[in-house]
Amino acid sequence: MDTNEYDLVILGGGPAGLTAGLYAARAKLSCVLLERGAVGGQIVVTDWIDNYPGFPEGLNGYDLVGKMAAQAARFGLVTRTETVTGMDLSGPRKILQLADGRKIRCRALIIATGARPNSIDVPGEKELTGRGVSYCGTCDGPFFRDMDVAVVGGGNTAVQEAMYLTRFVRKVTLIHRRDQLRATRIYQEQAFANPKIEYIWDTVVTAVTGENEVQSLRLRNLRTNQEDTLAVAGVFVLIGTIPNNGMLPLDQLDSRDGFLVTDQEMCTNIAGVMAAGDIRHKKVRQVINACGEGAVAEQAAERYLEEMG
Amino acid sequence: MDTNEYDLVILGGGPAGLTAGLYAARAKLSCVLLERGAVGGQIVVTDWIDNYPGFPEGLNGYDLVGKMAAQAARFGLVTRTETVTGMDLSGPRKILQLADGRKIRCRALIIATGARPNSIDVPGEKELTGRGVSYCGTCDGPFFRDMDVAVVGGGNTAVQEAMYLTRFVRKVTLIHRRDQLRATRIYQEQAFANPKIEYIWDTVVTAVTGENEVQSLRLRNLRTNQEDTLAVAGVFVLIGTIPNNGMLPLDQLDSRDGFLVTDQEMCTNIAGVMAAGDIRHKKVRQVINACGEGAVAEQAAERYLEEMG
Repeated sequence: MDTNEYDLVILGGGPAGLTAGLYAARAKLSCVLLERGAVGGQIVVTDWIDNYPGFPEGLNGYDLVGKMAAQAARFGLVTRTETVTGMDLSGPRKILQLADGRKIRCRALIIATGARPNSIDVPGEKELTGRGVSYCGTCDGPFFRDMDVAVVGGGNTAVQEAMYLTRFVRKVTLIHRRDQLRATRIYQEQAFANPKIEYIWDTVVTAVTGENEVQSLRLRNLRTNQEDTLAVAGVFVLIGTIPNNGMLPLDQLDSRDGFLVTDQEMCTNIAGVMAAGDIRHKKVRQVINACGEGAVAEQAAERYLEEMG
Repeated sequence: MDTNEYDLVILGGGPAGLTAGLYAARAKLSCVLLERGAVGGQIVVTDWIDNYPGFPEGLNGYDLVGKMAAQAARFGLVTRTETVTGMDLSGPRKILQLADGRKIRCRALIIATGARPNSIDVPGEKELTGRGVSYCGTCDGPFFRDMDVAVVGGGNTAVQEAMYLTRFVRKVTLIHRRDQLRATRIYQEQAFANPKIEYIWDTVVTAVTGENEVQSLRLRNLRTNQEDTLAVAGVFVLIGTIPNNGMLPLDQLDSRDGFLVTDQEMCTNIAGVMAAGDIRHKKVRQVINACGEGAVAEQAAERYLEEMG
């Protein structure tokens, strides 16, 4: 029978959770990592990662997370496939509610449930993710040198990333469903002054098409209903990020826009509860800082457990 | 002739600086990394790193930093060997003063000068660093499974790390130059209750001895002047960390105990000046979070440069 009592539970098996798990297992804590599906998080669907320090030639996301999981397993990290549906963090023993009715109890909890990009939810988007469909210009922009790409969105992130992409690509076409940008004025001014950015207003993408990689987008104008095709090698979907917080008691945990607020040591407002990775409210969402936060959160959990004796 | 004007200068070539440099070079910023010696920082003298995520078998510090440097170089990061002796951060153009009288100017600056452990400065210490002499229990403790080790120091870090080490080792002998610990009461109580920790008071280490690896310590009692020998496989020197801040204008930059204070996005109190890695005031000093902070600092620098137009 599985034990359901641990000193530390790590919730989520992406880079942040796996790093916390590596540290906790190496420190021989009584610890388990809970993941509802396969370990890895968002990066398993990332085709190629060039900016995780230590891999000069880059590697694909599936391989990177596999290495992280193998490393944590080498130190004895126990991973369980469990779906957590709710939790009570009000007492010194935190209680996690599982989908099948069982409960897991722990003294410290690291929340590393991550986030996911909003998708445009059209045919071809999922199939061509990592093959021209991207959700991160900083991550994937340099792969599109001298090519034509599209950006979908009109907020700060979309406009900033469009400008960033012009360092590499031949042309960026920004596709927005409204007739004006939501981004702050200074970004708008800079973007409008950038000769490499063109705009298609009042328009949505209805399909991403291509054999093995993105070749074009099908577009529809929301005012005229006219359909059109745009030839691009890549499309950056930048219409927001959704925190995976469905199982979190946001009435107990401080949050902002659904993301958890922590201090610099990754501690939430609840003693013994830490957060790491993309579930945190923060500006930079990269694999390397998710990992760094996982290590910092684990060290905070260790200090907490020591102080509680 | 070298240019001496950049959008971004990164000061320091350890993991934090190299990661910032990788991101900046990949983003095609006008950027240079300045390092007074060889790139690498503290980890080049770290024999084996088991807890940098992505390397299941571990690797040595020299190899890890070599990979990071190669990766940054692949994207075109320019590194210059320069000794910065001072700086003026008061204007929008930051001015770095070099040892030979030249100046380098930049719009944004990432300070990643690191820190170094206080050493006991005795024969054998330097020669056997990474071969039994360590400055980090979290990093190296698991390598000493079932062995006898010593801890030098009496503060919070020394006492916490001594307790941590008891998870792995057979016995920890804590050697302190005074007759009582400086650590806070709760840690003292826990340490005194731990049967695996013994104490040698009023005593200093006068030499670390061994062929290729640590075999014993030479000790001297400060009250009686009696000399003694202690057989150990490892010695953890935990008597404080010194920030590499000699070139920093601490009258302009917010600091605490000589370490730079930043917000969660790695911004100091001066607009356009970021800090990353061990020079920051923080609790966890590991390679992985130094790298994460380097990436976050670089993204903050990019946002700053964009906003300044």
